[in-house]
Parts: sequence; structure tokens; C-alpha cells
Amino acid sequence: MTALWLIVLCGVLSVVYAIWATSSVLGADAGSPRMQEIAGAVREGAQAYLRRQYSTIGLVGIVIFLLLAYFLGVYVAIGFAIGAILSGAAGFIGMNVSVRANVRTAQAATTSLAGGLELAFKAGAITGLLVAGLALLGVTLYFGFLTYSLKLAPDSRTVVDAMVALGFGASLISIFARLGGGIFTKGADVGGDLVGKVEAGIPEDDPRNPATIADNVGDNVGDCAGMAADLFETYAVTAVATMVLAAIFFAKTPILANMMTLPLAIGGICIITSIIGTFFVKLGPSQSIMGALYKGLIATGILSLIGIAGVIYYLIGFGKLDGVDYTGAALFECGVVGLVVTALIIWITEYYTGTDYRPVKSIAQASVTGHGTNVIQGLAVSMEATALPALVIIAGILVTYSLAGLFGIAIATATMLALAGMIVALDAFGPVTDNAGGIAEMAGLPKEVRKSTDALDAVGNTTKAVTKGYAIGSAGLGALVLFAAYNQDLKFFVAGSAQQHTYFAGVNPDFSLNNPYVVVGLLFGGLLPYLFGAMGMTAVGRAAGAIVEEVRRQFREKPGIMQGTDKPDYGKAVDLLTKAAIKEMIIPSLLPVLSPIVVYFVIYAIAGGGAAGKSAAFSAVGAMLLGVIVTGLFVAISMTSGGGAWDNAKKYIEDGHFGGKGSDAHKSAVTGDTVGDPYKDTAGPAVNPMIKITNIVALLLLAILAH
Amino acid sequence: MTALWLIVLCGVLSVVYAIWATSSVLGADAGSPRMQEIAGAVREGAQAYLRRQYSTIGLVGIVIFLLLAYFLGVYVAIGFAIGAILSGAAGFIGMNVSVRANVRTAQAATTSLAGGLELAFKAGAITGLLVAGLALLGVTLYFGFLTYSLKLAPDSRTVVDAMVALGFGASLISIFARLGGGIFTKGADVGGDLVGKVEAGIPEDDPRNPATIADNVGDNVGDCAGMAADLFETYAVTAVATMVLAAIFFAKTPILANMMTLPLAIGGICIITSIIGTFFVKLGPSQSIMGALYKGLIATGILSLIGIAGVIYYLIGFGKLDGVDYTGAALFECGVVGLVVTALIIWITEYYTGTDYRPVKSIAQASVTGHGTNVIQGLAVSMEATALPALVIIAGILVTYSLAGLFGIAIATATMLALAGMIVALDAFGPVTDNAGGIAEMAGLPKEVRKSTDALDAVGNTTKAVTKGYAIGSAGLGALVLFAAYNQDLKFFVAGSAQQHTYFAGVNPDFSLNNPYVVVGLLFGGLLPYLFGAMGMTAVGRAAGAIVEEVRRQFREKPGIMQGTDKPDYGKAVDLLTKAAIKEMIIPSLLPVLSPIVVYFVIYAIAGGGAAGKSAAFSAVGAMLLGVIVTGLFVAISMTSGGGAWDNAKKYIEDGHFGGKGSDAHKSAVTGDTVGDPYKDTAGPAVNPMIKITNIVALLLLAILAH
Repeated sequence: MTALWLIVLCGVLSVVYAIWATSSVLGADAGSPRMQEIAGAVREGAQAYLRRQYSTIGLVGIVIFLLLAYFLGVYVAIGFAIGAILSGAAGFIGMNVSVRANVRTAQAATTSLAGGLELAFKAGAITGLLVAGLALLGVTLYFGFLTYSLKLAPDSRTVVDAMVALGFGASLISIFARLGGGIFTKGADVGGDLVGKVEAGIPEDDPRNPATIADNVGDNVGDCAGMAADLFETYAVTAVATMVLAAIFFAKTPILANMMTLPLAIGGICIITSIIGTFFVKLGPSQSIMGALYKGLIATGILSLIGIAGVIYYLIGFGKLDGVDYTGAALFECGVVGLVVTALIIWITEYYTGTDYRPVKSIAQASVTGHGTNVIQGLAVSMEATALPALVIIAGILVTYSLAGLFGIAIATATMLALAGMIVALDAFGPVTDNAGGIAEMAGLPKEVRKSTDALDAVGNTTKAVTKGYAIGSAGLGALVLFAAYNQDLKFFVAGSAQQHTYFAGVNPDFSLNNPYVVVGLLFGGLLPYLFGAMGMTAVGRAAGAIVEEVRRQFREKPGIMQGTDKPDYGKAVDLLTKAAIKEMIIPSLLPVLSPIVVYFVIYAIAGGGAAGKSAAFSAVGAMLLGVIVTGLFVAISMTSGGGAWDNAKKYIEDGHFGGKGSDAHKSAVTGDTVGDPYKDTAGPAVNPMIKITNIVALLLLAILAH
Repeated sequence: MTALWLIVLCGVLSVVYAIWATSSVLGADAGSPRMQEIAGAVREGAQAYLRRQYSTIGLVGIVIFLLLAYFLGVYVAIGFAIGAILSGAAGFIGMNVSVRANVRTAQAATTSLAGGLELAFKAGAITGLLVAGLALLGVTLYFGFLTYSLKLAPDSRTVVDAMVALGFGASLISIFARLGGGIFTKGADVGGDLVGKVEAGIPEDDPRNPATIADNVGDNVGDCAGMAADLFETYAVTAVATMVLAAIFFAKTPILANMMTLPLAIGGICIITSIIGTFFVKLGPSQSIMGALYKGLIATGILSLIGIAGVIYYLIGFGKLDGVDYTGAALFECGVVGLVVTALIIWITEYYTGTDYRPVKSIAQASVTGHGTNVIQGLAVSMEATALPALVIIAGILVTYSLAGLFGIAIATATMLALAGMIVALDAFGPVTDNAGGIAEMAGLPKEVRKSTDALDAVGNTTKAVTKGYAIGSAGLGALVLFAAYNQDLKFFVAGSAQQHTYFAGVNPDFSLNNPYVVVGLLFGGLLPYLFGAMGMTAVGRAAGAIVEEVRRQFREKPGIMQGTDKPDYGKAVDLLTKAAIKEMIIPSLLPVLSPIVVYFVIYAIAGGGAAGKSAAFSAVGAMLLGVIVTGLFVAISMTSGGGAWDNAKKYIEDGHFGGKGSDAHKSAVTGDTVGDPYKDTAGPAVNPMIKITNIVALLLLAILAH
């Protein structure tokens, strides 16, 4: 009980930090009236979009809430609501800070790079810590309420199902937010660039471009709110899955409650280390932005090591644990592996997306020979970028499994995610600086300001890729954990089939690769990320095409826009994208929700129904959970790293290499950047929540069938 | 014995057909001296390339031959040599016909489209029937030699290993030929287009472009010789894997020899139906080229249905089979499923790559808004194009497994492959018409001729995608067969570990998805197609870049080339590409050869050695075989269908849609086509032999460890 209160305290600390940082951000100079006017337009657009997005998701959410309440009881449904509401809140608050920090960052950058970085990073840290803090508070408080106030056993079905439903709520918000936000932001970006940069020959963020406000709105709703929801669900689902495994592996041991608390405690201590880490982010004399961010990250990492050791020692000790053949110390070592995996994935992502290394330079080089070679090299880099992260994940699985079995893998994943506060902070400062650059451009601030914000933005491209690689990497490492949760749940129901879970009588799933239903499940799971990715890409293409038409129409009907004598209608583009994004996000988002259910019943029917049909269907669904990760991992990493590399190859050329701005190489690089946009900001990152939803729906399906 | 001789007779028939068709092609009018001069240059370049490629592969082959002879005995090594030599021969002969048919097709097209089609298709049919015929002859004669002349038991290790080695020989040639040829052809194509079409503004195949002969050489060495080697190995490996399974499932039954003969007999009868089918390919009054090809295909399909029924009845009857619980009739039904799967994959591929349907039109439409949207939509289509084929394969697995278990899946796959003669014929006419168009352009033939060859070429883009989808689809359907061969071999060795295979003592592989080594294997297998694809794409980018530099150099140093007063140095580009392709093909080709071996020993060491280490390592290698198919299927289909769609979107615009030739949309479409080139002709198709090699090396590894 004390432990839970301490964890809650950590969560509260993150909220306190967020309040303090928000007041500090809002206290900064908001710039000239012209700047405030632009920022106001961006803010309004972003809020209007998020309102519509949340109302749409709300409708879906209410339906699911009622279904869950009907099938699994009200506590499970409340869990779902908590996950959904807190996930939405993290994104909503983060975005509201972001749309206020942007103009202040632009203003701060007029004096110094360090000032801009400080403000932008602080805004990012608010989102980061709220993501981690609210997720932790939600899971901990509801778990505490169920187990202490309602006196339910920690491993009772209601508690487990409620925790899973909490993860489901978060995932559902997340996939809609990632996809809707991603379609909005990239529709604006791609459409605006195509017609502005390429056709009209005006620079990015030129106020004459009617899509420019929408582009800045997109940064906030996609890269900030969408990303926050994504990481919230990754955090929540991982914590929940680890708790479910603990409930199974340590059932009927005296340390059960403590083992279930462990992932939460690791999350709690890492919130404190993340808060401390934020104060280490300071521009050194080398003026290296990445260096400043790394200082914060390394501080957080080292402090977390110590903190996690303390938490493990306090909760379960370093000695041998009850009921298993490994020690608390081994679990600590698994935590270390989680930190090392995080560090390696960050380092690899920086290598593939940073402007200092071979991959980005090779894309820039290939741009000299044309659009085609730029895209070919970009695709090659994107595919190559999957190999090392996959090997790191493989090594992580092998090492942690040998240390402490499946639970070791779970602890490594939980530790990885415990750093989310800091990682999201690194990422969420990206849209702020991107917006600051846009505002600087539109408000006609001096060129040096734009140079500062551009430098911040280039780093933002890498940190954005890092977060996505990290999120999907944790899914890869956690693949076995999620599958194990499914498998153990299934075993539990089968074991209890004689008494209450009669649906599972005679069910005997076979997860061997010899089983054709397993191969079928793997292949079906494998196709989901491809189909989902295709839908996301098509949606962006369609939205961008609509924007191109709209901007062309405005240019045609108001020739004064280009001469600067007439003002473009920014609101029209924002409106158009809002409608498009909301409409386009629905069907792809339902794909992972419905797939496990459809696969289950189709295979059940094909395999002849009865217990044999159920066994076949459960095997196929289980294999599907791994299939979706096997291809999803590669699709997601290739898209997010490839997209980042394309974007920075363009920036590298703009820095004066291979002919610089306006050269043919630059034009080719803009094409590559355009292609990379939906890759890295729409389809790629949405694969992560998609994988989680598939897994979580499968768990809920089991629970519903058992009722 | 009679059956084997009859099968040999079918193989001989295919050779007789090839000789007859060759003399008929060579008897056609070879056109004007100028045309012959151009064709001569293409022929010389292609022959020079193939000589160098085969000498390089020869060196690798001799090393492997010696290794196999040392580890597994001389009969196994001879099997390897037969597979390698015959695969090479199929490609070599096919290409030599192709380089002579091209000019004659151009000449025939001066009179009529029907004439051009007839000649080009006949040339393609030579390659097609040689591929099927030589593969069948090789497998059948060597199997007959081992079992009848040497009196070895059909299921003895020597026979099984020798058959597997035969498949390995074919696969090894295939991956080198696919990759080397693919790098050559697309390096020439991409490089030539970039500098010719985009920079210099001269049409494709303009004789002033120094890369134009190399481009035509590439069509022959990549699309003809490389493709032939690929399908040869798919055919051989599938036949061999089915025989291995028959050897296991029907061991010690009286029908063993007949069951092992069955896949060969299906292959034999389908050669006859394919030969008959070729005579149905005739341009109808509608002038539909695709329609003419379909007539031949449908005729072959229907006749094959009857033929396969006859073969099964003759060899094993339709009643219940010894030792298993299914009937001969069920196996016939599996054969029907194989034919249906083939038909569906062809139909789906045509939908995604044909100019008449939504996907290609959507890419053409997206070209209007620029390079970026063209590529985005192309990527979306490429990803979407994987879903239906995957579902067809899934359905195929489910249906055939329910009919006749694993052996049913094997028979379906064997039946699918039995049509290879006809399918390859449909494909191999593509490079002939592509070349004919090039020769027509360079020799300044009237525009109508080019129009005819272009119409043939557009159909060629679809049929090329069809063959690749078909090859990879058969790999997907056969995934379980290859895995089962591995698994059964492993069981066999473990069972015999007390006596002779002492290495396998105490080994107990666990292929359950609960086993972390299985998940690790799936992930590692999953990364192979990505890494391999990245290498292929990079190689093409590099080769194309070199060509761009070379062409620019020639234009710069000989300004007379563009005025037509000076002749470009075609040979230089051919030479440069030959060297680049040979160099670049080595390392990626070794990836699948070395991966199973490395994974085995690394996992063995990590899992602590001993019997437990061996069990873990065998589990991981087995899972790797499925992992490589799960992602490989999607990578390959997305690349080959996407590439075909991009190419035909360009052709659709050139036909006068969305602004036609020279419009901005056309320029964007050229970019998409360029991106699609290495996708569809280098990286994508090479994934198929890569999957097979990974599987076959795993089988050989087992055999070597057992010795």
C-alpha cells in the first residue's frame, strides 16, 4: 500500500512539474502582435481540429464503453474510460502548451539559440512528463482502487480485465490520434510543399501560401497530440501486460502484490529521474543541440539505473524470488538491458537519420542525379535501417530471457518505457520549434532567427525518428510479453473450463510452427501492417491532392495573394483537412480492432467448429499477434527512419551541400522529403498502436468468450 | 520405372519443341542491315555479360561443389552440379534465342501486331518450356539414376540429400542471375533514363544515348536469363521438397516410389498441356494482346486439369492411400486448388498492374500533383497489392490442408509450379518486345512499329509482374512444405541419434511461439528480405549513378553525339555495368547462404551449447525459415506489383491521359517508373530465390551436421 502511494506521489510530481513548467513557458515574451496573430490562428485551428477529433472518437468510445460494460462489467468499462480519457488529456494539454510555446520560442530565438532551446524543450517536457505521469496515475490509482478499496484479489479476472481495458482505451485514442493527426499534418505539409515550393516557387511557411497555417496546425495535432497519445498507450499497455504476467507467474506467492507493483514502481522512480534529467538539458559551449539533449538523457539514464536498483531492492530484494528460479538481481540486470536497448536504438536511429552520417549523406548525394535516384536511395536506407534495431531487439530478448525468463523480458520492456517521460520530451520539442520557424518566417523576423529554429528543427527530425523507433522497438521487445499474456490467459480459461469458463472446454491450442493455422495466422498478421500502411499513405495522398487543388484555386481566384496585396483564406485549408482527416482515420483504425475477431470466427468456422475449431482459431489468433509484430516492426522502423533520413537529406542540401537551396539536387530532395512525410508521420508511427490494439483486442476477446 | 521414362519423354518433348520453335524464329526475316547491326551489339553485350557472370558463379560453384563432395559425398555434389548447370543452361539458351528474336520481332511488327506477337511469344515459349523441361529432366533423370541404376532406396539419405543439393545448385545460380542481371538491367535503365529522358530530353532508346545498348542488353540478361534461372529453381525446389515429404509420409508403404514420382508426373503432363496451350495464343479480332495470352493460359489450365486427374488415377488411383487418411481424389482437388490459386494471383496482379484498373490510374492521377504524390501513391498501391495475394495463399493453405494435410499443400504447390512452362512463356516474351521497340527506335523504323511494340511491352509489364507474383506466391504456399521438410528431416536425424546421427542426441526442438528462440528466429528471418532488398536497391542506385556520370562524360567530351555527327561509345557503358553488376551481386547473395549457418552457431553458443543449445539453435533456424517467408512475401509482392504499376502508370500517361507525353504529370510518372525499376526487377524478384536458398541451406546444414 505504501508503495502504491509513493508511486502516486511520483505521478503527482510529474503533474506539479507540468504546472510549474507551463507557467514558466506562459510567462515568456509572446512576441510582436503580428506573431501573436499568426500563433492565434494556429492555436484556433489546432483546437478546432482536436475538438472534432475527440467528439468523433468519443462516439466510438461510448459504443465500446457500453459493449464492455455489457460483456465484462462496469469496472472493466470504467478502466477503458480512464485509459481513453487520460490518453486524450495528455495529448490535449500537451498540444495546448505547444501552441503557446511556439510563438514564445520564436521570440526567444531572436536573442539566442540557447533561449529558444530552453523554451521549446520545456514545452516538450510538459507533454513528456504528463504522458508518463498520467499513465502511471491512471494505472496505479485504478489498480489501487480495485485491489484496496474494492478488496479484489490483484490477480482476479476483474482486475486483470480492467487493466487490459485501460490499455485498450489508451490504444484506441492513440490509433485515431496518430492516424487522424498524421493525415492532417502530412496532407497539409505535402500539399502545401507541392504547390508552394515546387509550383509557385515560394519558400516553406511563406505567408502567401494558403496551406501554411494548416501545416503549422498539423505539427501540433499530429506530432504533438498524436505522438503523446501513442506513447501514453505504449506506456500503459506495457505496464499492464507486465502486471498481467506478474499476476500469473507469482500467483499464490506472498510477493504477488509487490511483483505486480514493480513495473509501476519502476515507472514512478523514472519520472523523478526524468524531471531531474530535464534540468541537465543546457546548450554547452559547443552549441551542439543534440549534445544538450544527450546530457539530459544520459543524466536520466544513470539516475534511473540507481533508482531502479533501489526500487527492486525495496520491493523484492536482490535474492531468489518465491516460485521462480531467478533473483531480484537478475531482474535488475534485465532493467539494465532495457536501458541499453533504449540507448542503442537511439544511437542507431541517430546514425540513420542524422545529417552527420553516411545514410543521410548518401541520399543527398543521390539527389544530384535526380528525383528517381533520391527516392531509390531513400528506400534503400529505410530498409537497411531496420537491420540493426532488429538485431538489438533480438539480443535483448535472448539476454533477458536467459536472465529471468519471460518476466525478464517484461521488466526490460517496462524499464525501456519508464524513460518515456524524457524520450517524449526530446520529441515534443520538435513541433514547437517547427512552428516557431513557421511563425518567424510568416512574421518576417530576421533570417538569423529562422536559422536558429531550423537548427532546432533538424535535430527535431532525428528525435522524432528516435521516439518512433523507441516505441516500436519496445513493441518488438514486448512482443513475447503480449503473446505470453494472451497465451497465459488462454491457459487460465482452459484450466477453469470445467467450472465456469465452459466455452473453453476441450480447447487445446497448438502454437507450433508445424500447425498450418499458426502459419496462416502469421501471414494474416503480417499483412495487417502492409494494408494499414497502404491506407494511411493513400489517405495522405488524397488529402494532399485536395490541398493542392484548394491552394491552386485560391491562387487562381485571388491573383493578389502572390503579389502580397490580397490575403489567402487559411481557414479553408484547415477546415478541409479537418474533415478529410476525421473521415479517413475511421476505417484503417477499425482494421486492428476487427481483425482478431474476424480471424477467430472465420478460422473457427473453417476448422469445423466445436472444440477443434476453437483450438484452431485460438492458435491462428495467437500467431496473428506475432505476425503483426514481425512485419510491423520492419514496416514501422523503415518508414520512420527512412522518412527522417529523407527530411534531413533535404536539410543537408539546404545547408549548402551538393548545390544548396534551389539547385536541381534540392528539388529532388524535396521530392524525397515529400515521400518521407506520410512514411514517418502518418503510416509508420501508427503501426505501433495498431500492433498493440490487435494484441489487446485479442485479450479482450478471450475475456468476453470466457463470460 | 515406366512412369519415370514417360516423364523423361515429356521433358524431351519440351526440348524438341524448343528446337522446332528456335528454327522457326531464326527462319524469320532479320530486318535491315542497320537493325541487324544494332541487334548484333545487343547480342554481343549480353553474351559478354553472361560469360563473365557464369565464370564468377562458376568459381563459387566449384568451391561449394568441393565442400559438398567432402561433407556429403560425390553423389550429392553431382546433384548440386546438375541443378546449377541446367539452371544456367536454361537461362543461357533462352537469352540466346531472345537476342535473336528481338530484331525479327521488330521486323515482323512492321507488317502486323499479330506477327510481332507470334514471334515474340514463340521466343518466350522456348525459354518457358526449356525451364520446365530441363528442370524436370534434371530431377527425374538423376532421381532415376540414383534409385534404379545405383539401386538406392528412394527415401535414403543420399537420394534425399542429392535432390536437395540439386535444388541448391539451381537456387544458387538463380540468386546470382536474378541479382546480377537485375542490377545490370536496372542500372542501365535508371541511369539511361535519368540522363537521357530527364536531362537531355531525348526519348527512350534514342541512339544518341550511350546507355541505350546497355539497356537492351539488360532486358536480356535480367528479365530473360535471370528470370529463367529463378523459375527453374522454384520449379526444381518445389518438386524436390514435395518428393522429400513423400519420402517421409509414405516411407515403408508400397506406394512410396509412385508418391515420390507424382510431382514429377504432374510436371510432365503439364509440359504437354503447355505446349498445346502455346498454339492457342493468337490475336483475335479484338486485337487484345492480353486476351490472346489468356486464351493460351486458359487452354493450358483446362487441359492440365484433365491431365493431372489422369496422372493421379494412373499412379495412385482416386481411392484411399496407404498409410494416410486421405484419398487420391483429395490430392486431385489439391491440384485444382493450385490451379485456382495461380489463376487468382494472375488476376489480382493484372488488376494491380494493368492500365485498365483503379490502382494504375490512381498513380497516373497522382502524377498530376507532382513527383512526390506519384511516389506516395505508388508506394500505397505497392503495399495494398500484397493483401489479396496473401489472402489467396492463406485460403489455399487452409483448403488444401483440410483436404490432405501437409502433403496436400505440397501437391497444390507442385501443381502451381507445373504451369511454369506457360507462365514463363508469358513473361519471357516481354524482353523480346522491349528490345524490339528499342531496335525500332534506334533503326528509325516508322512510328507505327514502335506503337505495336509498345502495346506488346505494356502487356509485358503486367505479365512480368504476374510471373514474379506467381513465383513468390508459390513460395508462400510452399512455406509450410519447406518448413515441414526441415522439421521432418530434423525428426529423422533425432530418431536415429542413438545409432548413426549422434550429433542429434538429446536434441528436442520446440517450434512453439512461446519459445523465445522461435520469436528470435522469426524476427531474424524477417529482417533478411529487408536487408537484402536494401542492398539490391543501393547497388542499382550506385550502378545507375555510374552510368549517369559516364553518359554525361560522353556528352561533354563528344558534343557531336547530340547533333548526330558523332557516335556514342556503347561498349563502355556495357562494360562498366558488367563489372558493377558482378561485383555488387556477391555479398547480398551470400546473405541467405550464410544466415542459417551463422544463426545456428550463434544461438547454439548463446543457449549454452550441448543438447539444449542445439535444440534452441534448431528451433531458431526453423523459425527463421518461416520469418523469411512472412516478410519476404510482402516485400516481394509489394515491390514487383508496385513496380509494374508505376511503369504502366507512365505508359497510361504516355497514351495521352493527364496531359500525355512531355507534360508535368509525365515527368512525375517517369520518376515513379525509375523508382519502380529496381523494385520490380532487382530487389523484389530476387527475394524469391533468397527465401529458397535460406530453406535449402538449412536442410543441407542438417545433413552436414548428421554426417
